[in-house]
Amino acid sequence: MHSSYDVIVVGAGHAGCEAAHAAATMGSKVLLITMNMQTIAQMSCNPAMGGVAKGQIVREIDALGGMSGIISDKSMIQFRMLNRSKGPAMWSPRCQSDRNLFAWEWRKTLESNSNIDFWQDTVQEVLVKDRHAIGVKTSLGITFTAKAVVLTNGTFLNGQMFIGEKVFGGGRTAERASTGLTEQLVTLGFEAGRMKTGTPPRVDGRSLTYDAMEEQPGDESPGKFSYLNTPVLSKQRSCWITYTSDDVHDILRTGFEKSPMFTGRIKGLGPRYCPSIEDKINRFADKDRHQIFVEPEGWDTVEVYVNGFSTSLPENVQYDALRRIPGFENVRMFRPGYAVEYDYFPPTQLKHTLETQLINNLFFAGQINGTTGYEEAACQGLIAGINAHRVINEQENFVIKRSEAYMGVLVDDLITKGTEEPYRMFTSRAEYRTLLRQDNADLRLTEKGYEIGLASPERYEKMQQKRDNIAALLSTVKSVKLKPEDINSWLSEKGSAVIREKASLYSIVKRPEIDQHDVQYLLSTVSASSDISKEVLEQAVIEIKYEDYIGREKLNAEKLNRLEELEINQAFDYDRLKALSFEGREKLKRLKPATIGQASRISGVSPSDISILLVYMGR
Amino acid sequence: MHSSYDVIVVGAGHAGCEAAHAAATMGSKVLLITMNMQTIAQMSCNPAMGGVAKGQIVREIDALGGMSGIISDKSMIQFRMLNRSKGPAMWSPRCQSDRNLFAWEWRKTLESNSNIDFWQDTVQEVLVKDRHAIGVKTSLGITFTAKAVVLTNGTFLNGQMFIGEKVFGGGRTAERASTGLTEQLVTLGFEAGRMKTGTPPRVDGRSLTYDAMEEQPGDESPGKFSYLNTPVLSKQRSCWITYTSDDVHDILRTGFEKSPMFTGRIKGLGPRYCPSIEDKINRFADKDRHQIFVEPEGWDTVEVYVNGFSTSLPENVQYDALRRIPGFENVRMFRPGYAVEYDYFPPTQLKHTLETQLINNLFFAGQINGTTGYEEAACQGLIAGINAHRVINEQENFVIKRSEAYMGVLVDDLITKGTEEPYRMFTSRAEYRTLLRQDNADLRLTEKGYEIGLASPERYEKMQQKRDNIAALLSTVKSVKLKPEDINSWLSEKGSAVIREKASLYSIVKRPEIDQHDVQYLLSTVSASSDISKEVLEQAVIEIKYEDYIGREKLNAEKLNRLEELEINQAFDYDRLKALSFEGREKLKRLKPATIGQASRISGVSPSDISILLVYMGR
Ligand SMILES: Cc1cc2nc3c(=O)[nH]c(=O)nc-3n(C[C@H](O)[C@H](O)[C@H](O)COP(=O)(O)OP(=O)(O)OC[C@H]3O[C@@H](n4cnc5c(N)ncnc54)[C@H](O)[C@@H]3O)c2cc1C
Ligand SMILES: Cc1cc2nc3c(=O)[nH]c(=O)nc-3n(C[C@H](O)[C@H](O)[C@H](O)COP(=O)(O)OP(=O)(O)OC[C@H]3O[C@@H](n4cnc5c(N)ncnc54)[C@H](O)[C@@H]3O)c2cc1C
Repeated sequence: MHSSYDVIVVGAGHAGCEAAHAAATMGSKVLLITMNMQTIAQMSCNPAMGGVAKGQIVREIDALGGMSGIISDKSMIQFRMLNRSKGPAMWSPRCQSDRNLFAWEWRKTLESNSNIDFWQDTVQEVLVKDRHAIGVKTSLGITFTAKAVVLTNGTFLNGQMFIGEKVFGGGRTAERASTGLTEQLVTLGFEAGRMKTGTPPRVDGRSLTYDAMEEQPGDESPGKFSYLNTPVLSKQRSCWITYTSDDVHDILRTGFEKSPMFTGRIKGLGPRYCPSIEDKINRFADKDRHQIFVEPEGWDTVEVYVNGFSTSLPENVQYDALRRIPGFENVRMFRPGYAVEYDYFPPTQLKHTLETQLINNLFFAGQINGTTGYEEAACQGLIAGINAHRVINEQENFVIKRSEAYMGVLVDDLITKGTEEPYRMFTSRAEYRTLLRQDNADLRLTEKGYEIGLASPERYEKMQQKRDNIAALLSTVKSVKLKPEDINSWLSEKGSAVIREKASLYSIVKRPEIDQHDVQYLLSTVSASSDISKEVLEQAVIEIKYEDYIGREKLNAEKLNRLEELEINQAFDYDRLKALSFEGREKLKRLKPATIGQASRISGVSPSDISILLVYMGR
Repeated sequence: MHSSYDVIVVGAGHAGCEAAHAAATMGSKVLLITMNMQTIAQMSCNPAMGGVAKGQIVREIDALGGMSGIISDKSMIQFRMLNRSKGPAMWSPRCQSDRNLFAWEWRKTLESNSNIDFWQDTVQEVLVKDRHAIGVKTSLGITFTAKAVVLTNGTFLNGQMFIGEKVFGGGRTAERASTGLTEQLVTLGFEAGRMKTGTPPRVDGRSLTYDAMEEQPGDESPGKFSYLNTPVLSKQRSCWITYTSDDVHDILRTGFEKSPMFTGRIKGLGPRYCPSIEDKINRFADKDRHQIFVEPEGWDTVEVYVNGFSTSLPENVQYDALRRIPGFENVRMFRPGYAVEYDYFPPTQLKHTLETQLINNLFFAGQINGTTGYEEAACQGLIAGINAHRVINEQENFVIKRSEAYMGVLVDDLITKGTEEPYRMFTSRAEYRTLLRQDNADLRLTEKGYEIGLASPERYEKMQQKRDNIAALLSTVKSVKLKPEDINSWLSEKGSAVIREKASLYSIVKRPEIDQHDVQYLLSTVSASSDISKEVLEQAVIEIKYEDYIGREKLNAEKLNRLEELEINQAFDYDRLKALSFEGREKLKRLKPATIGQASRISGVSPSDISILLVYMGR
């Protein structure tokens, strides 16, 4: 039992599962230790994957060879591509998941990997020798040794749950907390902090009046996350939309004096962008209603998730307020919402590989780093798992750039800026979001995943095929000339300007009013569309239509990547540059960025501070 | 939320689920409160239903309209009819279950019953007024009112788990204990005790060498539990058999000094008939090996249950010993076995309806009454649920006699004899076991279930049809005469004596060497077998072959039922009967049985004591 492993992963949440899968797939013998084998890959909060910026991350995980996309595809009950009406950089896949199925698919995936062993127990200590992690010790007093350790403890470290004035120890409803580990890490020299998050009540779908709500069905032709051949939904379950009102808010306010957040009993900061309903009422006092998404928890359960109504107010206040929401007049609750406060470790203590700076071969991933969200956790798990495998095999760090993926943005944000409140991803955090689209994650990342032995050859070939097909299609589009007599009547029907002389198909595709279907039609008129897949067509059309933007961003990225890597001497004396802003200088002196790129992302360091530095460095 | 219910069921284990389903199906508004909605109908220990005497109970639950049989049918991965080689009273259906599927099927069943509401929380207090239960109070401080309350807390009341020298609070691995409730019940006047049970380690099926074990496949033509049209398995998973050895026992002995059982740290008595491996070694020191059943936990998991190896020895001892078992040389454990100690309430404090004597409309069912086993729990839940519904509707008690069902034996044993150690059912506990067969539970009980509004009309009609068909077949068999020239050559082929003159089919069926298939053949020769179902044929054959036994037992049962109900004056002065044995007199004085039947089942009261009483009473 006490055999030695290459990598020990602590915790089987979204981060832990990806970490274990990645390291094991690359060849490490992995031990996954988790408090309860029945809750592997449990979705703590909403039964959904993806969404704005998060959906892009799931696609990126998939492109690299991670599993979150495949598992989401196998367990989804509804799929929607959000922001279809905006530019393709904003298109964001999102699915509603069957909570149980999601967890079970993960478990089956892990079990089918012969390099992964399991142990149900609570880790209480990381074993360290010469500032290297060498194993863990559990609450059963068992010692497991390994060459690297990945901690993914989620919301469990000294977790405390709050409902109104009541407090319960625990990391998630009806689950214990993990104690002792934070304290040990602090003695090793780590700094720890406290954060909070919350979840809404779960209700009985049989008690809702759906007529009073707005139906939100899945997409008519649903997409999916994985670039592999996962199944597409043939039937879907609908979600529903309803709204709070002044009335609801008034009732909620009656609970404020017992709120653990407003009375200061919760010290940790909560996610600003995923606030509790009481927070929303407080911060947006002028808004007279907030949207509520009513989401089924699976194919065949009546349990319903009340998205948008996260709260830790007393349960009777939750109940009374819920009943004023249209459709909820007769609602029956299964359990109240609650808040959870837990320890995290400011991620500025990490390297870009998610290895800690203090202890070699020790990695942190997921909510323990101050993030929130399954997708954010999963992609960190992937990065940590990959790098844990690589560090023990003396391979180079695997680091993804900001211009390559949201995952790169996330890790870089965390380790250079840190975070005071639970960090979640937004498209606005990515300077190169036009490049980091959901449609091209495979083109951006699969080769990298393949090179490190994570993405399968099958996946790699599929991506290459797609890349070749896109190139072929682009060259067809550029070479084909259309004659006025052939397409003018069609064009005027479309409300698009007619052509006077032969025009390239390319120039027509560029017209804003011409969409993907039109392109398909035009291709068929020149008998060139037979074997063009939807995704190849989409990709080519995007590349043509957004050529200029994309080109500009690519240039910028290249330029910045060069500067990015421009090293700053660690002994550099910032006091010599009088022109620096006061705040900028102080931050630079304190954080000592290794490169101009890092310096540029320190909050308080202004673009003009960077220019001054660049001038000094002769650029 | 705080609406009022007819019946509140506390706990969603096997007892709680049956109780909630029964009361709700009969028409009560039911609230099911349980600590974790994700663990509804969790199998705490082995993933299997049925077995000797237990399988009969599942059939009885089904016959009455309970759900355990249907759910077992829907979630089984293997079926075997145990004891086929013995008489039909011993035939016992048993299935291996998919642990997750079993729980999920229960949850779906409960959710689809519109009379059942759910609440996730821990009950800490039963609300009592004028010695009537009127509701409960939870750890969230919420009060729910109801006309009756059924407690089914399982192993959770002040639960403590033991592994070697380590102790953890909790009711089941990785689950919290329930505190406060026992204490409150004690202040109400209840007596509480302590019991213990244990579970084996779970191991990784990928690490076992099945070649070294004996395969135990399911039955070639698998049966099922329900009398309704549930599906029959078309594929099955095998179990495997292996053995411990002296070597294994020697290693286990090295842990004895740290055993929580042998060092006296566990005070509660464990199940004598389902002992831990250390117990077996200790009590059967001469046995040099014990059988181990290696059982898969579901259709698509590698987790394996090591049946027969329940233990609370230190986990390294568990591991070292396991590795000496053939097939387990390279075993990897998922988690160690452990023991759990918990509060129970001696069941002599109950009535035959499982209502408590002290508090009206308060019922106890399941492990809380000192039993062990899912089937024992489930049938108590059923009885309690039925009676909770009936008491609040001022209907008569629903009590099943010992001669009618194992369920009757179980309840009667519990409330008259009580139990010092976890009670489990055996065929030997049933005096009328020849009557209480798995094949005829519907004939025994479905009418009762239908009369109280639990068994569906469909079920009732099916049973009646079967009864009629059996009667028709019996009369056919009795009337058909076979001619020597028609069957003598067949008879001698079978090794059965030839006939000289016409003989009734009936007389041939009675011959021991003639089995069910032969009967079917004989019926076909007189063209009477066309629409006879397997179960009707089986039933008729059993009735003919075992006519004498069955008749005798029926007579006995009738006689005893008459005596059973013979009341004893509560003021009766046993000291007047000098002939009574000393122990018998003391027990009778102390327990004051209400009837001769009850008196006869008090341990220490001998048959001759009963004769003396009967003589005195003029019988
Ligand atoms: C109440 C609640 C509300 C939330 N609300 C939101 C929200 O509104 N929006 C949002 O985006 N995200 C929300 N989240 C966060 C989301 O659930 C997490 O971001 C995500 O699950 C984090 O994944 P993880 O892998 O880091 O940790 P988790 O999913 O928490 O998994 C941690 C795992 O580690 C195990 N573990 C912990 N400690 C130990 C130990 N010492 N030894 C062994 N195993 C251990 C646990 O058993 C668990 O399996 C919420 C979480 C909770 C609990
Ligand atoms: C470790 C272990 C080993 C076992 N080994 C064996 C064995 O070898 N052989 C055998 O036949 N049987 C064994 N059993 C027993 C078997 O699991 C039980 O007999 C059976 O599950 C009892 O069913 P139940 O419904 O009474 O209780 P349980 O199945 O224990 O269910 C109790 C339910 O009540 C809930 N609950 C408890 N307290 C509260 C509260 N205050 N408020 C709300 N909800 C509450 C719990 O969450 C749970 O859902 C074992 C059990 C355990 C835990």
